[in-house]
Amino acid sequence: RSGEMAKLTQLLDNEAFRAYATYATIVLLKMMSMSLITAYFRITRKAFVNPEDTASFGKGENAKKYLRTDPDVERVRRGHLNDLENIVPFLGIGLLYALSGPELSTALLHFRIFVGARILHTLAYLIPLPQPSRGLSWAVGYTVTISMAYKVLKTALYL
Amino acid sequence: RSGEMAKLTQLLDNEAFRAYATYATIVLLKMMSMSLITAYFRITRKAFVNPEDTASFGKGENAKKYLRTDPDVERVRRGHLNDLENIVPFLGIGLLYALSGPELSTALLHFRIFVGARILHTLAYLIPLPQPSRGLSWAVGYTVTISMAYKVLKTALYL
Amino acid sequence: RSGEMAKLTQLLDNEAFRAYATYATIVLLKMMSMSLITAYFRITRKAFVNPEDTASFGKGENAKKYLRTDPDVERVRRGHLNDLENIVPFLGIGLLYALSGPELSTALLHFRIFVGARILHTLAYLIPLPQPSRGLSWAVGYTVTISMAYKVLKTALYL
Repeated sequence: RSGEMAKLTQLLDNEAFRAYATYATIVLLKMMSMSLITAYFRITRKAFVNPEDTASFGKGENAKKYLRTDPDVERVRRGHLNDLENIVPFLGIGLLYALSGPELSTALLHFRIFVGARILHTLAYLIPLPQPSRGLSWAVGYTVTISMAYKVLKTALYL
Repeated sequence: RSGEMAKLTQLLDNEAFRAYATYATIVLLKMMSMSLITAYFRITRKAFVNPEDTASFGKGENAKKYLRTDPDVERVRRGHLNDLENIVPFLGIGLLYALSGPELSTALLHFRIFVGARILHTLAYLIPLPQPSRGLSWAVGYTVTISMAYKVLKTALYL
Repeated sequence: RSGEMAKLTQLLDNEAFRAYATYATIVLLKMMSMSLITAYFRITRKAFVNPEDTASFGKGENAKKYLRTDPDVERVRRGHLNDLENIVPFLGIGLLYALSGPELSTALLHFRIFVGARILHTLAYLIPLPQPSRGLSWAVGYTVTISMAYKVLKTALYL
């Protein structure tokens, strides 16, 4: 079966596909870091949502007072959800775009701008920076995804 | 490297894969439109969640009164989350299904029904249409995804 | 076009890719089951969020009292969102990992542990089991995804 393995590996020999693999992995790792930041704020702010998470703080009212929302926790969670809403389209459309035979330099431009914009979006959300920082970084990532979608539909359209 | 590029492009020469690329891109663009609709309702209803988003309305109580939830905004957000919950499985299972060698006509039927059902689901959610419109359109998309998952597992099962 | 179809099918001849297809489909079906469990609790607890969903219970106050949150419904919804946050990275990174030429036994180990951990996470969330059951099962799935990301970046890095 080394023949098929070779064919598979060829997919990762293609530079545009390797660039996709690299930037998709980086932006997914960034998204995953939101879970750790949420956990950090939940623990330092003592703000939990599941009763079983506060059991170590004692019983009854002692534990119950930590079942509450905290503005910092909610902020990270909104950033995380915004990541899901924007990174899922990037993953799907970006994969198809990488398979649509783009110029390597154009593909790199798309991937780099998208990932950069999403990192800025997270910084703008968490610091937080004054608007329109967050709005603009969101719009840049959104526009890059639309641009890739246009290329995919132009290359592959089959209704 | 034009040899490998050619091999990659061959993936998009396969008609079932091209159909997947087309319908996956369309349904992701539809999901992305939910962000714009949310922004539209947030701005027209003046209902925001981040303090930095209301800074342009003035300071103190003047701005604070726009930090509130609005039924229309919440409705779009629920539709968006429902999209994520259903379109993510379609993206993953649909990609594997397109690679599993389905009949082109069968594949087109699956993709068209799924995307049509999700567009109806959004309309049923946003207008809103009386039930069971939303429930049925959800169930149709769900069933299509299960049907593709069955084909993938029948073709590829390797535990 | 049977030539191209053959090439595509070869992707599913590769055992590591077949294993990915199998486990990705299983974990997506698991995630999809969260929708059914949410619906089950909404109906049995009579706890809805959309006014049109309570129309069958009568009009006015009769129906309005079922527009409420229920702890069991909210618990399933949190489990569902946690699935999205963790299964989306697995889908993207796992696909690239399966294409990066891993040892079959190593790939199977990654996929099996991830899917097992996510099933345990759901059980720990829904029963619920005392902590750290849920935390540990979350951390195991997270670590497996990081390990696959490392292999992808080592094989494909192209910045």
